[in-house]
Amino acid sequence: MRLAIDAMGGDHAPDAMVEGTLKALKEFPDLQITLVGDKDKLVNLVGEQNRIDILHTTEKIEGTDAPVQAVRRKKQASMVLAVQEVREKRCSAAISAGNTGALMASGLFGVGRIKGIDRPALAPTLPTIHQNKGFLFLDVGANAETKPENMLQYAIMGAIYAEKVMHRPNPRIGLLNIGEEAGKGNELVKEAYKLLSNAPINFVGNVESRELLEGPADVIVADGFSGNMVLKSIEGTAMSLMKLLKETLGSSLYTKVLTGLMYGKLKSVKQHMDTSAYGGALLFGLAAPIIKVHGAAKSEAVYTAIKQAQLLIKEDVVGTIEHTFHDKQYDWMNSKV
Amino acid sequence: MRLAIDAMGGDHAPDAMVEGTLKALKEFPDLQITLVGDKDKLVNLVGEQNRIDILHTTEKIEGTDAPVQAVRRKKQASMVLAVQEVREKRCSAAISAGNTGALMASGLFGVGRIKGIDRPALAPTLPTIHQNKGFLFLDVGANAETKPENMLQYAIMGAIYAEKVMHRPNPRIGLLNIGEEAGKGNELVKEAYKLLSNAPINFVGNVESRELLEGPADVIVADGFSGNMVLKSIEGTAMSLMKLLKETLGSSLYTKVLTGLMYGKLKSVKQHMDTSAYGGALLFGLAAPIIKVHGAAKSEAVYTAIKQAQLLIKEDVVGTIEHTFHDKQYDWMNSKV
Repeated sequence: MRLAIDAMGGDHAPDAMVEGTLKALKEFPDLQITLVGDKDKLVNLVGEQNRIDILHTTEKIEGTDAPVQAVRRKKQASMVLAVQEVREKRCSAAISAGNTGALMASGLFGVGRIKGIDRPALAPTLPTIHQNKGFLFLDVGANAETKPENMLQYAIMGAIYAEKVMHRPNPRIGLLNIGEEAGKGNELVKEAYKLLSNAPINFVGNVESRELLEGPADVIVADGFSGNMVLKSIEGTAMSLMKLLKETLGSSLYTKVLTGLMYGKLKSVKQHMDTSAYGGALLFGLAAPIIKVHGAAKSEAVYTAIKQAQLLIKEDVVGTIEHTFHDKQYDWMNSKV
Repeated sequence: MRLAIDAMGGDHAPDAMVEGTLKALKEFPDLQITLVGDKDKLVNLVGEQNRIDILHTTEKIEGTDAPVQAVRRKKQASMVLAVQEVREKRCSAAISAGNTGALMASGLFGVGRIKGIDRPALAPTLPTIHQNKGFLFLDVGANAETKPENMLQYAIMGAIYAEKVMHRPNPRIGLLNIGEEAGKGNELVKEAYKLLSNAPINFVGNVESRELLEGPADVIVADGFSGNMVLKSIEGTAMSLMKLLKETLGSSLYTKVLTGLMYGKLKSVKQHMDTSAYGGALLFGLAAPIIKVHGAAKSEAVYTAIKQAQLLIKEDVVGTIEHTFHDKQYDWMNSKV
């Protein structure tokens, strides 16, 4: 199996991308990687590893670039070429830590959508407090405007992923809403609630954002606007709180020493909440596996995303979604709606 | 000045309500309170305090009651009577820790809206990490469906409150959105952005939920659906993280002892994030000050809400909002839109 990796995207590129790749190659003997990026910078980092091919380019999409224009103009950008490797079947999946919107645009132009999916969704996995299992959260912002039918599609794609990749039999699907009772929320989620209730999934009803980290469901479905806000609230609150804790505990020598003695424990809390253990965010609904790794990702997150990509391919998640949206099961769902 | 307090609403009623009241009476010699609730339960708690009148009723709105129906049917409910004291000018403000929706309905039926305000908003003050100043956040869920004009009204009301009650000259008003650049977001926030840009306020543009606790603005304006989700995400993440921290640090005797030695510091982090220091959530847009205290509020939060109510009245926040929405300033704003 060969994967394409955009070596130039993300805050810690290319080092983090190459380190993550090398770690994965050590663990998976059947894995081969095409690193897309500046050969001059990559050759030394890669060293003697002969299961890496370098696809040379110096063009790159920046985090500040307008996604669609950038993808149209920078035809030789590392991200665009990585997706092209997938389109032309030389690689089975592409991974990038670059500009999220541009990766989505590269995916839409490059490999296209699965037939039956109107809007792809961005779907990271978030940690939970107790079970250390995490939950899939989609859409977290691929689309600012969402229709109820989009959310039904998210739910079905999420259920397939949860079962095949997260190994959750009969996964619980929850709908992000401002109250638990049916009938709560705005028109969009009320309509989505009806569609999800009639879909062939294990729908557990509305879930409030307050409960998310306690793990009330395996998959949380949201409109992209709310999903993005909630994701960033969780990240921001965790970050701010850890900062406050650090400042408070570090404010005297006495507590500084005590904190030092507890370093391992405090670190384990931080690691528990670290999303890099959960891989990247899949761009659900594209016709091939394209994975977005966090822009701040270090080598561990890249390594995990490579693991995740292999599982996606082995379990044929994209094929299963395609199949589900073409066969009778989907007709049946439509007739219920 | 006399305030009406619903003694029966909230998880810790009536004890927390009475304790908070007694503390406030000790501090403010001009304050008088009408406690609305079951006389049999209140008399002993109140003791000798002669600046408290008890308005007796045994009827009560439950947290699970459907708001509008409950307010219509339970005409003698403690919350409804507390608002009635304000309507009939015997009290200047009402405070309740009961059912939020029912309090809004009581307010709408009882004292009505300020002319020019289409939808009242629920507005708590949230803590920030660094400055310990907090920011006003509205709407956090009074309305599940929101129009851009509503958000303009929220912004103007918030600006008045921030200046008069929070003592922030020329307060910074931010718009909750999924990106910082103008033009980000769904149609609703894009329209709201235009209205806020043209309003006579210190509009600082879009604010992402990730930044909220860092204090990027004095007032954050949101549609009620997103506002509710983000508020609950922040609360939930803080709660889950503190729980995880407690469990991790308490998992061995060694770290338990070390944690005990740092108890004061850890408590100070918790207190820093404690919303009870910031008072209750004002129901902005009602024609009199009605304050919602958190359902889990203890006496300290009740005491702070009483302080807040007095300031609201002394600074005539409701009158200033009325004035602002009637005079030329508002016409000018409308002509710009």
